[in-house]
Amino acid sequence: MSELRKNPFSGEWVVTATHRQDRTFFPPDDFCPLCPTKAGGTPTEIPFDRYDIAVFENKFPSFATPAPEGMASDRFFEALPASGVCEVVCYSQDHAATFADLGMERVRQLCEVWQERYVDLIGREVVEYVFIFENKGREIGVTLTHPHGQIYGYPFVPPVPAARLAMERAHFRERGASLAEAWLDAELADGRRIVFREKGYVAVVPFFARYPYEVHLVPERPLTDLSQFDQSDLNGLANALERIAKTYDKLFGFSLPYMMGFHQHPDPATRCVAQFTPLHRASNKLKYLAGSEAHCGVFIVDALPEVSAAALRNA
Amino acid sequence: MSELRKNPFSGEWVVTATHRQDRTFFPPDDFCPLCPTKAGGTPTEIPFDRYDIAVFENKFPSFATPAPEGMASDRFFEALPASGVCEVVCYSQDHAATFADLGMERVRQLCEVWQERYVDLIGREVVEYVFIFENKGREIGVTLTHPHGQIYGYPFVPPVPAARLAMERAHFRERGASLAEAWLDAELADGRRIVFREKGYVAVVPFFARYPYEVHLVPERPLTDLSQFDQSDLNGLANALERIAKTYDKLFGFSLPYMMGFHQHPDPATRCVAQFTPLHRASNKLKYLAGSEAHCGVFIVDALPEVSAAALRNA
Repeated sequence: MSELRKNPFSGEWVVTATHRQDRTFFPPDDFCPLCPTKAGGTPTEIPFDRYDIAVFENKFPSFATPAPEGMASDRFFEALPASGVCEVVCYSQDHAATFADLGMERVRQLCEVWQERYVDLIGREVVEYVFIFENKGREIGVTLTHPHGQIYGYPFVPPVPAARLAMERAHFRERGASLAEAWLDAELADGRRIVFREKGYVAVVPFFARYPYEVHLVPERPLTDLSQFDQSDLNGLANALERIAKTYDKLFGFSLPYMMGFHQHPDPATRCVAQFTPLHRASNKLKYLAGSEAHCGVFIVDALPEVSAAALRNA
Repeated sequence: MSELRKNPFSGEWVVTATHRQDRTFFPPDDFCPLCPTKAGGTPTEIPFDRYDIAVFENKFPSFATPAPEGMASDRFFEALPASGVCEVVCYSQDHAATFADLGMERVRQLCEVWQERYVDLIGREVVEYVFIFENKGREIGVTLTHPHGQIYGYPFVPPVPAARLAMERAHFRERGASLAEAWLDAELADGRRIVFREKGYVAVVPFFARYPYEVHLVPERPLTDLSQFDQSDLNGLANALERIAKTYDKLFGFSLPYMMGFHQHPDPATRCVAQFTPLHRASNKLKYLAGSEAHCGVFIVDALPEVSAAALRNA
């Protein structure tokens, strides 16, 4: 049972999804629900004995269509059914693979799958925002180690992208130009925080990064969302994603946990961006969200973006 | 060197505090900087051989007065010196104590210390918001286990309390009444999420809780900030704080890690509130902030507030 509940002190929606409390939690490798179903073996989520990339609806979704009916709503207890879509995207049948070692061809296929899923989901009545993401590694809270990402089709534009869109729209209205483009030009002119610039993509640790090794991948073309990507754009994205994932692993010396989120919206004021946010601030230390971050929304960052960008550049 | 950096896509400030990268990290018990200085021993942060409660400026502050000078600022790289105050509050000279076992008299003294520090800090030119908080436990990212809290004097009102204040002010303007009071009345009338109501305080798992065991302690009197607290209000706060901390430990069977934040502001539209946010969703499972929470600002909660409030009530 999923339900959206409104916080009257912030206007934000919280999702209660109590069935997720019992979701699969670090199953033994032999019982991974994301592996192919072996002949004569226990059926997994994927009823085939081999696959390249598999997409299916999350068995423990935060949102679902049709949504269960919400409780009666009143002024302080405003609730709505949590309509929407939650999909799982398995990157490989190889249980021990990671995004960084899928190989370029597979990453390019994955970008095509994302494009196909985005176009389908954004066209649905109940979906207002499509968020493609990967939670990778135990430190991020992942409970299944098989390489996979997720796609959420939210029934509203979530507050973080909504705030970004509002700033981008205001800039576009006032100046007739893209905020992201002006910002990217400034970052390129400064240069100190650029990790690489290749095949139409810029990788940058933003001046305002919240995490020490946060990297944004921004297309140089004014692409708002995946529906606008041609083959060359998809190749450029795949190249940039793989390169940054490999760079992380090389710099840290192990497969670095991270969150990756692809933000996009069909709005001429915006530009899509893939954001990587690893939690590590050193190979043996994590950045935690504590009182200042969680309660006040003020991030304290222990490393200068100029320094971490140089480290990534040299890795 | 601390610096405030503005995110042009959200308008929010991030603090870079690179000297914190080298802050003390789980020192051996014999070298705890928050213990009293023993005769003939290495000096700690507290130059006395015994103490009840000790307050001093953080040696690795996120903010400081005077702040170091900021870098040159321009349109996309807006930076300011991170002015402000960071204090550490040691709750006890007993290295192994926790807030829950300080005893009522010490907790009451602590509330008096908070009151004194609040009145001092909110009166300073550089401080716009005073946040009293405790990060407790390794899971929250604490690097010193000695029982202590912190006080941040921010040079601006942080975005989370700013959003709350804006909603409270709008409600106050439109209805001439307190949003927090109307909400508290609704929670009391419903009753299912109330943990206890005692000595002028209500403990509630809010309808819109982001964490399974999030508890808000709200005074029944319309108190905006600690400067308005009389002895009876301080006693009521101390009682409620201790009771909820003890209840957590009893329910979980171990000393439960949490963030505690005391939100207050000298504004007639607001009401102060102490918020506890433990990360545990079960005794062996944590709630992590992953893609949806960190990138989109949408919290997925695995437990119903009605159920966790009942568990806390019965503990």
